[in-house]
Amino acid sequence: MSTSADINDREEGLAFRPKFDASGLVTCVATDAATGDVLMVAHMNDEALRKTIESGEAWYFSRSRNALWRKGETSGHTQRVVDMRMDCDQDAVWIRVEQTGAACHTGRRSCFYRAVTNGEGGAQLSFVDADRMFDPAAIYRK
Amino acid sequence: MSTSADINDREEGLAFRPKFDASGLVTCVATDAATGDVLMVAHMNDEALRKTIESGEAWYFSRSRNALWRKGETSGHTQRVVDMRMDCDQDAVWIRVEQTGAACHTGRRSCFYRAVTNGEGGAQLSFVDADRMFDPAAIYRK
Repeated sequence: MSTSADINDREEGLAFRPKFDASGLVTCVATDAATGDVLMVAHMNDEALRKTIESGEAWYFSRSRNALWRKGETSGHTQRVVDMRMDCDQDAVWIRVEQTGAACHTGRRSCFYRAVTNGEGGAQLSFVDADRMFDPAAIYRK
Repeated sequence: MSTSADINDREEGLAFRPKFDASGLVTCVATDAATGDVLMVAHMNDEALRKTIESGEAWYFSRSRNALWRKGETSGHTQRVVDMRMDCDQDAVWIRVEQTGAACHTGRRSCFYRAVTNGEGGAQLSFVDADRMFDPAAIYRK
């Protein structure tokens, strides 16, 4: 259990003390430094955080592949970190990045290429900014 | 297990099919519609998603309190949703909001009021945009 002194340290202190979840991860939001658009939401473990901070390039931890991963290592679509922020309880980071090419593995600039609206039959999606910048089949060959 | 047809449906389809984690939650990133700043990262369950979509006001699910929660119900610092997006694999949503007052329970406009930089002894934090807009002790009385 966290004591209130512990919570206060984490929220008001200047020590870097990421609060990892049970899988050893924090959430990372990457936004486009030029437009403010959210490009992607992913996860970082301790090593991904350290490598990102030291290199100025975004590293993540893939839950599906259970592996550390430098963004763009396969596609060339790297992210240069312009600014990095930690949230109040230190379980989420926000990076503002200069994105080379597309952030999304589907080929779109951002992973958030569908809008959610309230339709007659409930929530529905529609494409927004969904043009592909690359063909994923050509880049992620097996 | 997800089949590739299932993955394709979720990524390229227009059906709203949130992919909840083991706790029944998706991640939600709220950004300031005016500035593009990330205000907070939180979670939504099925009911929070539905209420947000139907009402146009942000609802979340608090993991620490295990309760549905309308943003601002205690503080008055509500979020009006201007735009809502779903990400490629439908496990994260992005809302652009008009934030009344401050998003962070510590009284700051954004939860991301500390920058992370690479210091001599490793990562360190520094306050950025950390002025309080309200006194949390005065608002969140026990």
